[in-house]
Amino acid sequence: LDRSAGIIVIGNEILSGKVVDTNSPFLARELRRLGVTVRRILTIPDELDVIAAAAAEFHRDYDVVFTSGGVGPTHDDVTIEGIARGLGRRVVRHPAIEGKIREYYGGNVNEARLKMAEVPEGTELIVDGRLGFPTIKCENLYILPGIPEILEQKFEAIRDRFAVSPYYLRVVYTREGEGTIAEHLNATLGAFPDLLLGSYPKIGDPEYAVKLTLESKDEGYVARALAHLLSLLPPDAVVRTE
Amino acid sequence: LDRSAGIIVIGNEILSGKVVDTNSPFLARELRRLGVTVRRILTIPDELDVIAAAAAEFHRDYDVVFTSGGVGPTHDDVTIEGIARGLGRRVVRHPAIEGKIREYYGGNVNEARLKMAEVPEGTELIVDGRLGFPTIKCENLYILPGIPEILEQKFEAIRDRFAVSPYYLRVVYTREGEGTIAEHLNATLGAFPDLLLGSYPKIGDPEYAVKLTLESKDEGYVARALAHLLSLLPPDAVVRTE
Repeated sequence: LDRSAGIIVIGNEILSGKVVDTNSPFLARELRRLGVTVRRILTIPDELDVIAAAAAEFHRDYDVVFTSGGVGPTHDDVTIEGIARGLGRRVVRHPAIEGKIREYYGGNVNEARLKMAEVPEGTELIVDGRLGFPTIKCENLYILPGIPEILEQKFEAIRDRFAVSPYYLRVVYTREGEGTIAEHLNATLGAFPDLLLGSYPKIGDPEYAVKLTLESKDEGYVARALAHLLSLLPPDAVVRTE
Repeated sequence: LDRSAGIIVIGNEILSGKVVDTNSPFLARELRRLGVTVRRILTIPDELDVIAAAAAEFHRDYDVVFTSGGVGPTHDDVTIEGIARGLGRRVVRHPAIEGKIREYYGGNVNEARLKMAEVPEGTELIVDGRLGFPTIKCENLYILPGIPEILEQKFEAIRDRFAVSPYYLRVVYTREGEGTIAEHLNATLGAFPDLLLGSYPKIGDPEYAVKLTLESKDEGYVARALAHLLSLLPPDAVVRTE
């Protein structure tokens, strides 16, 4: 069983190099652990039309979509409106969120704070007792905030719903460089065409020259592919396997 | 004077969360310093058709494009072929690179190593005495390797060609949260519609609640916008400006 995912990172601060995005690496790692295959990560500016186009495309192309950023109360928070436009929905004020905001701010409620109650029409709220604010889901899009601490909390609260069959990973570290072992990688892929085989050279590491990753959702398949590859590699080329 | 850029990160290892991409943050930061506006960062798998589509789109949409990854000698290095396909060009073996490879490896040259001499037809080689290997440029695409040390070296060697007029940045740190200051941000944007204004809340920082960034390529404009914003904010809301 497989499930594809796309991640949309919304924020001028990432594109202008002011902030390093840690949300997409977090989501990529956690989704992989759950067996979900991330197909794209796209970072875009805080612009309505760009967000709308990305939301429409990712909504169509991937099973689940995560967005990060652009959901606060200020002028540059246009993610909700952009996603609504991309999905052909209106923006509405959600009564349950509005109630929470009015309760929290009391007499200090204002237009900016009430903007946080806006959602695309037809949005589902995922309520978790541990979190103050519900997570917003519209169609297959999970709309997450850009602040890493909150994004991570919210993802932890919904992670169980994404689990599919896991990937099995084996790793081989080689002393020989890619130019020497490439033919054996090709031969292994010839015999195991469904193997996910990665080859990652490391510069200046005294221990190894290349890290090879072998993956499949079929544990036996990856074990047989690993045995095949090890039978081809020169005996002293392998530093270790994991 | 403005110049737009797109960054394409090619690599299953990023999408599967095995490796954290440091190349796009590096390029985003350095390009901003040069006054270049990065419009998109897209991370895609090592797949021919996906690379071809991304290369064609970015080639069309941005003034300069940087790709990172997928240029080694192994089976998963399909960036060159993907870009060639996206630009409607053939893949050819470049005689100057082939000569360098044959010279370096002598009798140990093999098909995998010679694969490193492949480029899209019509490629320009940017030779820099400090680097062993030329940088590959095809149309407006700069094809960079995924290994961060090498990507950074190569970028340093070509960075001067991208400089345009710089962005001027001023920063305001506020004690008040976004919900309180949003109206003043909106008013400032009303008076200075071309201002690039970012608002970034920080959780758990004892010093400030929101970092505001004001930017423009017109130094006087950003100075006037800053003065306007400071005149609107409550006097004790500002921690400091930079």
